[in-house]
Amino acid sequence: MTTLPNLRIDGARLWDELMETAAIGATAKGGINRLTLTDLDRQVRDWFKARAEKLGCTVTIDSMGAMFARRPGRADIPPIALGSHLDTQPTGGKFDGVLGVLAALEALRTLVEAGYETFAPIEVINWTNEEGARFQPSMVASGVFAGAFEHDWASGRQDPAGVTFTQALDAIGYRGPQRSGEHPLSAFFELHIEQGPILEAEDKTIGIVTGIQGIRWFEATIRGEDRHTGTTPMGLRKNALLGAARLVERVNAIALAHPPHAVATVGRLEVRPNSPNVVPGEVFFTVDLRHPDAATLDAMEQDWIASAYRLVEELGLEVETGKILDQPPVRFDAECIGCVREGARAAGFAAREIVSGAGHDAGYVSRVAPAAMVFVPCRGGISHNEAEYSAPEHCSAGAQVLLQAVLGYDRLLEERAAAQHA
Amino acid sequence: MTTLPNLRIDGARLWDELMETAAIGATAKGGINRLTLTDLDRQVRDWFKARAEKLGCTVTIDSMGAMFARRPGRADIPPIALGSHLDTQPTGGKFDGVLGVLAALEALRTLVEAGYETFAPIEVINWTNEEGARFQPSMVASGVFAGAFEHDWASGRQDPAGVTFTQALDAIGYRGPQRSGEHPLSAFFELHIEQGPILEAEDKTIGIVTGIQGIRWFEATIRGEDRHTGTTPMGLRKNALLGAARLVERVNAIALAHPPHAVATVGRLEVRPNSPNVVPGEVFFTVDLRHPDAATLDAMEQDWIASAYRLVEELGLEVETGKILDQPPVRFDAECIGCVREGARAAGFAAREIVSGAGHDAGYVSRVAPAAMVFVPCRGGISHNEAEYSAPEHCSAGAQVLLQAVLGYDRLLEERAAAQHA
Repeated sequence: MTTLPNLRIDGARLWDELMETAAIGATAKGGINRLTLTDLDRQVRDWFKARAEKLGCTVTIDSMGAMFARRPGRADIPPIALGSHLDTQPTGGKFDGVLGVLAALEALRTLVEAGYETFAPIEVINWTNEEGARFQPSMVASGVFAGAFEHDWASGRQDPAGVTFTQALDAIGYRGPQRSGEHPLSAFFELHIEQGPILEAEDKTIGIVTGIQGIRWFEATIRGEDRHTGTTPMGLRKNALLGAARLVERVNAIALAHPPHAVATVGRLEVRPNSPNVVPGEVFFTVDLRHPDAATLDAMEQDWIASAYRLVEELGLEVETGKILDQPPVRFDAECIGCVREGARAAGFAAREIVSGAGHDAGYVSRVAPAAMVFVPCRGGISHNEAEYSAPEHCSAGAQVLLQAVLGYDRLLEERAAAQHA
Repeated sequence: MTTLPNLRIDGARLWDELMETAAIGATAKGGINRLTLTDLDRQVRDWFKARAEKLGCTVTIDSMGAMFARRPGRADIPPIALGSHLDTQPTGGKFDGVLGVLAALEALRTLVEAGYETFAPIEVINWTNEEGARFQPSMVASGVFAGAFEHDWASGRQDPAGVTFTQALDAIGYRGPQRSGEHPLSAFFELHIEQGPILEAEDKTIGIVTGIQGIRWFEATIRGEDRHTGTTPMGLRKNALLGAARLVERVNAIALAHPPHAVATVGRLEVRPNSPNVVPGEVFFTVDLRHPDAATLDAMEQDWIASAYRLVEELGLEVETGKILDQPPVRFDAECIGCVREGARAAGFAAREIVSGAGHDAGYVSRVAPAAMVFVPCRGGISHNEAEYSAPEHCSAGAQVLLQAVLGYDRLLEERAAAQHA
């Protein structure tokens, strides 16, 4: 492989644009409230479109509102894409998603200013509704793009006010003519903040994301009997909260039994009737199991279900469980991962391989195109929070590695094409 | 002691009046929703006043709305009182409180119809706001009567709509001229459903209530850190719900360590932010500890507090605890208890001594007058529930024992007076 051009992104310019767009939906506490397909989302989309067109790009929109800002390459092949999302949580931070789009724009701008012509076309993508805060499920545009969701089902999803996804797209003028999914990509790279504490704890600047762990969600309802706390002897109780407490402990133990990657959590738990002097007759809770490996997830799921029935039976209780989410683990493309690794090495950043704990658009896109991700640290691992923060030098490092990875993959495509024609 | 007169209450008449008054605030599921000092409460108070006056009683009202229906005795001494409360929980049953007042009325009617003249005056009492469902705390009228609460503080308590206790009394015309507490009693007897499963389980008709267990309530808030469930490794978590789960288990174990009387419960528990994909950063919960013996309650409290700090510290969490209620154990008057025991024996009912698990007006009244209680079984121990049920023969048995106990205590007072004048 020949040496890549020595192109450097401009970190200060990237930071300025992060702060500039953070004003669109800025919150008093320093975060962003920019729900998907609102007028604030329209404003940031208009801003993105104008910047991309100023760089000579053609911006197209698909039927799920995904935006593709294209710079032609020397070859007429599907583009190498890079990007993320510009929507936020209602009390979101300035970096989740936004960094991935603006760093992609900065990388493209660097190519334009250097007059560097890539082999493949380059596209910066803004995926619609990654957060899932206004319309469920999350990552719906990349999901439809990759065939994970039916187009019509996704288009008809309603927000809490009853507005459909399509109506919301039309309201801000961002429903495009190209049907989602009819847009082949040569590859997709996504830069994102880690949203976890690992890189910071180990003082690494770059996470080479090798995949996304699998996620399974369950709901459970334990039923006992509402009884007076003062008049019901211990031996005559059917305390649903005692059963739930044992399962909270057990779910935690299941993760500890599969170190170091497994995580398992009861995040939501509701007690009924929830009165100080009533022995709880019913408890509802959710279970979140995650692991990069499907076989381990299977073992964790079996343990959780078996424990649920065994532990509640010991207390004379009943339990009902249901699986409400099952996202298989994602293993990113080896060549794309190699390009990220080489980009980090060439730029001289301390890096480590990492499996993403959260879902990302790149996870769906990897079903239809080679993909990988770049992570940068965020302070305290805090995300989905107005206090979310990623230092300028980390944002800049991520953008640089993103550019290098794209250039690396572009070189790979060109070499492969040359070999085929040789 | 000479033989008591052979007076029999009329169980069918009592049952008819239970069903008649159950219509005032009747719910679709067969219960009663008759919150204190509402217009429904006024209706049942008016009904009670009319019935008592028809029996020749003088009805007086105190400044907390407590009603005293008096039949004179041969001696000018403080009355022997009997009664309970006519207010209910929002989804209350037909027997909790109501049975105690209507059985007292039936006992009084039995005396009137037999033309039996007691030595002491006899009073039937309806205490205001026993339930504490509209105004907190519960048992506030008997509490002020006994000096447990400040009169002005209690008068100013507000319901959720901001209406004060005094305003509510005035609104239904039941604020009386006599200041609460300035009403001496020779003794007080209260019939009540057990609200627990013990009498039914042992097939006893009468509970000879020797006291009320002590109650201590605590609030606790455990603080950890809100974190993403997918991106936060197990070793870096501060999971407040895991800490709370261990304390739910520990509170249960504390009761089991002090058999057979101790009960301990976490009845209310709230998780924040309570989202499936956020490791809980904060959990609030209540702890209810009860035991008939203050020294054991002390040991239970110490164990709970020490466990709270030890268990959360092991998880890197913080906890804040506060005691919000401390009702010392009540030991009823030996002579009053003796009268209940003798009444049950004379009437031929299977009886056992029992300590009340729940608080009752008789508990406060026992601070200022000799007191005791009579319990009868309720089906399945179910109370504070529209399904609450006590069989007609049990209601009748309770009323009969209540009458016998009052007559026994009256005889005792007369004999004591005679001995003093001899």
